Amino acid sequence: MNFSSDNAWGAHPAVLASLAECNEGAAMAYGADPVTAQTEAVFRDVLQAPDAVVRFVATGTAANALALSQLSPAFGRIYCHEDAHIETSECGAPEFISGGAKLVALPGEDGKLAPQVLAAAIKRGAGGGLTGGRNAAVSITNATEWGTVYSVDEVAALAQITHAGGLPLHMDGARFANAVASQGCSAAEMTWKAGVDALCFGGTKNGAMAAEAVIFFDPALAEGFDYRRKQTGHVFSKQRFLAAQMLALATDGLWLKLATQANALAERLAEGVLAAGGGLLVPRQTNSVFATLPAELHRKARAAGAIYHLWPDKTAEGLDPVPLRLVTAWNTPEEDVERFCRVLTEG
Amino acid sequence: MNFSSDNAWGAHPAVLASLAECNEGAAMAYGADPVTAQTEAVFRDVLQAPDAVVRFVATGTAANALALSQLSPAFGRIYCHEDAHIETSECGAPEFISGGAKLVALPGEDGKLAPQVLAAAIKRGAGGGLTGGRNAAVSITNATEWGTVYSVDEVAALAQITHAGGLPLHMDGARFANAVASQGCSAAEMTWKAGVDALCFGGTKNGAMAAEAVIFFDPALAEGFDYRRKQTGHVFSKQRFLAAQMLALATDGLWLKLATQANALAERLAEGVLAAGGGLLVPRQTNSVFATLPAELHRKARAAGAIYHLWPDKTAEGLDPVPLRLVTAWNTPEEDVERFCRVLTEG
Amino acid sequence: MNFSSDNAWGAHPAVLASLAECNEGAAMAYGADPVTAQTEAVFRDVLQAPDAVVRFVATGTAANALALSQLSPAFGRIYCHEDAHIETSECGAPEFISGGAKLVALPGEDGKLAPQVLAAAIKRGAGGGLTGGRNAAVSITNATEWGTVYSVDEVAALAQITHAGGLPLHMDGARFANAVASQGCSAAEMTWKAGVDALCFGGTKNGAMAAEAVIFFDPALAEGFDYRRKQTGHVFSKQRFLAAQMLALATDGLWLKLATQANALAERLAEGVLAAGGGLLVPRQTNSVFATLPAELHRKARAAGAIYHLWPDKTAEGLDPVPLRLVTAWNTPEEDVERFCRVLTEG
Amino acid sequence: MNFSSDNAWGAHPAVLASLAECNEGAAMAYGADPVTAQTEAVFRDVLQAPDAVVRFVATGTAANALALSQLSPAFGRIYCHEDAHIETSECGAPEFISGGAKLVALPGEDGKLAPQVLAAAIKRGAGGGLTGGRNAAVSITNATEWGTVYSVDEVAALAQITHAGGLPLHMDGARFANAVASQGCSAAEMTWKAGVDALCFGGTKNGAMAAEAVIFFDPALAEGFDYRRKQTGHVFSKQRFLAAQMLALATDGLWLKLATQANALAERLAEGVLAAGGGLLVPRQTNSVFATLPAELHRKARAAGAIYHLWPDKTAEGLDPVPLRLVTAWNTPEEDVERFCRVLTEG
Repeated sequence: MNFSSDNAWGAHPAVLASLAECNEGAAMAYGADPVTAQTEAVFRDVLQAPDAVVRFVATGTAANALALSQLSPAFGRIYCHEDAHIETSECGAPEFISGGAKLVALPGEDGKLAPQVLAAAIKRGAGGGLTGGRNAAVSITNATEWGTVYSVDEVAALAQITHAGGLPLHMDGARFANAVASQGCSAAEMTWKAGVDALCFGGTKNGAMAAEAVIFFDPALAEGFDYRRKQTGHVFSKQRFLAAQMLALATDGLWLKLATQANALAERLAEGVLAAGGGLLVPRQTNSVFATLPAELHRKARAAGAIYHLWPDKTAEGLDPVPLRLVTAWNTPEEDVERFCRVLTEG
Repeated sequence: MNFSSDNAWGAHPAVLASLAECNEGAAMAYGADPVTAQTEAVFRDVLQAPDAVVRFVATGTAANALALSQLSPAFGRIYCHEDAHIETSECGAPEFISGGAKLVALPGEDGKLAPQVLAAAIKRGAGGGLTGGRNAAVSITNATEWGTVYSVDEVAALAQITHAGGLPLHMDGARFANAVASQGCSAAEMTWKAGVDALCFGGTKNGAMAAEAVIFFDPALAEGFDYRRKQTGHVFSKQRFLAAQMLALATDGLWLKLATQANALAERLAEGVLAAGGGLLVPRQTNSVFATLPAELHRKARAAGAIYHLWPDKTAEGLDPVPLRLVTAWNTPEEDVERFCRVLTEG
Repeated sequence: MNFSSDNAWGAHPAVLASLAECNEGAAMAYGADPVTAQTEAVFRDVLQAPDAVVRFVATGTAANALALSQLSPAFGRIYCHEDAHIETSECGAPEFISGGAKLVALPGEDGKLAPQVLAAAIKRGAGGGLTGGRNAAVSITNATEWGTVYSVDEVAALAQITHAGGLPLHMDGARFANAVASQGCSAAEMTWKAGVDALCFGGTKNGAMAAEAVIFFDPALAEGFDYRRKQTGHVFSKQRFLAAQMLALATDGLWLKLATQANALAERLAEGVLAAGGGLLVPRQTNSVFATLPAELHRKARAAGAIYHLWPDKTAEGLDPVPLRLVTAWNTPEEDVERFCRVLTEG
Repeated sequence: MNFSSDNAWGAHPAVLASLAECNEGAAMAYGADPVTAQTEAVFRDVLQAPDAVVRFVATGTAANALALSQLSPAFGRIYCHEDAHIETSECGAPEFISGGAKLVALPGEDGKLAPQVLAAAIKRGAGGGLTGGRNAAVSITNATEWGTVYSVDEVAALAQITHAGGLPLHMDGARFANAVASQGCSAAEMTWKAGVDALCFGGTKNGAMAAEAVIFFDPALAEGFDYRRKQTGHVFSKQRFLAAQMLALATDGLWLKLATQANALAERLAEGVLAAGGGLLVPRQTNSVFATLPAELHRKARAAGAIYHLWPDKTAEGLDPVPLRLVTAWNTPEEDVERFCRVLTEG
């Protein structure tokens, strides 16, 4: 019963098969191979964006930091939610790779930026002269770090404010598939059609070993990106093995199927929590459940072998009820989910 | 007949099997998994270095730049050969990740630093006051970019000079296995016993998909390394998939077997070149053959489908004889090697 | 009637005289001159810190960013007040010069960090694993950006928490003289005796043209500092002209006299504001007055030619009362201060 | 008899007077003052470049590194002479401030880049794919580090090659005045009319305390420069004191008069060296004399109190003849020059 993270689980068999397939024979290194070219094309199709520049890297932190460094100079201000992964969980990678950009962290309910808060922050930043740096970009995470989702309309509203300030909009889509699956929209509707300029399309949490796509809908924003990726050590010599993972996910809508499955498992967990008398810190929309459990149920779950993180960290131990986070992956065993619910309710 | 690079070829079946094996079930993310711990231990065994800090990253550029950024401050001088990969082929990654360190490129025959040249450069750098930065480290590549090898004694001689200058010695071992295989020494003899302080132990060119080990023989040199690796986006969330590749190579001496095989194939190519009236730019010691071919033989080889790089680049086209580079991998087909030799000699 | 900033006013005649004096004859460049050595010694005396390393730079931003880059690695977390100059007004210089460190901005009344808030933040940062970076340093400003002052006891309390977390304490003393003058303590009591590890001792706002001292009470913290200063372009070739300015201020306690004068002028302004029916946003302790004025008085003051900044920025125009900031310098004309008060009270 | 450097001497009285003059009264900080605006305009006049962006900083290292960081991304290649100040004497500032750019150091006689060498290097860099970074800029120093001068035609020839490669041309003019004085051309002819895109116009060695102008002839190249200058700590709060120094030099052609005087003094030194049986390492064209002296004369000069640097460094002590560098400033005492010559010849 490991609900610690979607990172805790492995790769889908189709990903392994794709790796094995492209392992045959020789291919030119550093991305000059046919699998890479094919996968880039497939992603342009998935996103209905024939002019987009698509590149693959191995980690979400690399994807975000590299994308943002294209959007912001060293002296730029990047607006994001105060719980954004780029702000809390990447060890300063955006600052480092951009050469010193400042993340301006803003509050917002349910892990989401509110339009008026963003608008006010952009306005203040624009009026600050040299002192605070120059407005450079806005970054939102979808699905958010709280498992909630910006709807297409919400993305569009933030994009409008962002563009009105003359800035590009970045979407950290480490769990992009879960967001799209929850909204029943297309990948295009969730992104460029709503005004997103750069997208990090997560593969790792979706079922890859380690692969993410960085997508610039406006090719001008990708200027020099390949050099930047190389200078940070993020170009694989056998680059085809990154592409092959993403190819498997993009084929036949596997990415959406896996996300839909993970979301459904999380919904079952949320139901179980509520049925047992627990609560939800935020509405469950994707594959994360931010819940509270009466301390006694928490102890029972732990005793039964359930693995999950307290929230926001271990200091929550001892609280009653206990705040915690449960995350499902595409292959979280259904029996684990059911057993967890039984432990809570039958306990 | 692809002799373009050892990067052109894929992963060994044992690597794929190891990935598949560790794909079962769940494991804690970011390196807190048993496969990572096990593989680190195995590498300490391979290197007979029980106190060494071992970490895994996906690319050789990341390995080198991260290792060097531990050894050099932003204002450091790092001495290397003028043909060193870190100087010519990493797009400024060492400068970027170290925050601005200066590579001091030195000449040397056969791709190797000469002791007296290094000693003079270190002395000059030590006397330069603030202007040129502060002496920080020495980096050598073994096997070198010219396929030649520093013997254990040669490494020890350079290490002595390096340490006499108060500096640590880094070894770029992108083709470390090929170097060790050529010398019949142990990994320990080639490294810490000869005075190497930090080693990048290449897996990718040896038969992995994308995996390298960074090893600090003195744990003090690894201080803060995990943060640095994270801040540059080089920690995988499913970190076990990096370790699993290296585990396969380290098991039962597979790394040495594969390198020995690649070296032998290159020897066969070198013989073929010489037998056909071609020449060698430097002695063949590992899996690269820097050769010259009469222009007519070059045309015949190309016509027969042989793929290789002219040296140092395309501008060599039109020369007679033509300088070029042939590289073999663990799985370069023996029949390709034989056919190439036949094309040259039977013409 | 220019109350816009203490930066708006020039240098004290003794500073000009000192520059003229050291302009005679030749001297070795880059700090190897007797004036620089003498001034470093004088500052060690002023601070009763015979082992301190003292260096001079031209700007406060350089002083802070360079000092912090000694205390924090690229992946460090630096705790400060959310209104700290390093957070709001240096265009990302600390992030840039440290190579990517993250400023963790904390709330606090009257521009001051509260011990319990700092303690909690340090504790949370220590428990974050790799994700948020590594705790590196704490920075406080004295006098603060709100013109308030940490007493010696308050500094000591924050230093204790900082050191308990294993971190060094940095003091941004752009208006250090004003703080010391307000407390009647010694420079040593306000700094190393209370636990400060690195001090930026401001000269520019105190009466220099452009000169600041960076002081490391523990010489070990200054390791490599001269290279860093050079690499950022902050070593003057005619370095003696930086030292000469600071020498004038440090001689015969001029720095304290000037600050005392500026503080007194601000007190007079504060009295005038209160007498006229205005208010204070925070208690006046040094040479800044954060006040509110009825809109009508604000219009009268402007009409009479008074120059000052609305607070926090122009968007305050139109409020009633109007929040604003008045700052005095050592040479703000007393008649300007009196005239301003008359304009307010006599209408 | 201090011939160690033009940095060893102080500021011209007109510079001091200008500082004193602008010390009167209050002015807005951070460059929003009338002296700064006036001086920028005067420099546009001096350069006959009405659209140029002119900014002032305190050090030559800052000027060069900031200018180059506008011309090169982090992954750029900047071509320069192997003896260029940016390569040998700025402690990695260009690499640091650009975020990692690589200086590609090229050989060349008399401290000057040769057109064909530059053309070949640019061509090679353009063909290197991602590995070596992207061609970004060319930097030349005029007068060079060897005191020699690129004529207007030589600058134009290098500019043509630079522009043909799609790159901008930077001129490090730490001794720009000396170069212009030696050629009898205008500042415009030496720069933008010959194809220079960015100029660092040195004030410090010319007679300022610490002031340099950074000039972008194409305003587009200055995009964001003010933020970059701020982020590196190179904006003075009392910015008018930087401008005032440069204003004095630019007024009534003082900059040219001072350089002409320094050049003439150096010519007298060169004559003295030759008359005494010494030699010149390169032709004397400006205010530096790279000479050789018979060891006996060197000892006599030292005994008489002459101060100068051996070349390239102290390791030259013991050679016979001894290579050394003599540098004059605008105010090197004529009697010192004459006395030095007498010591050599009458000795």
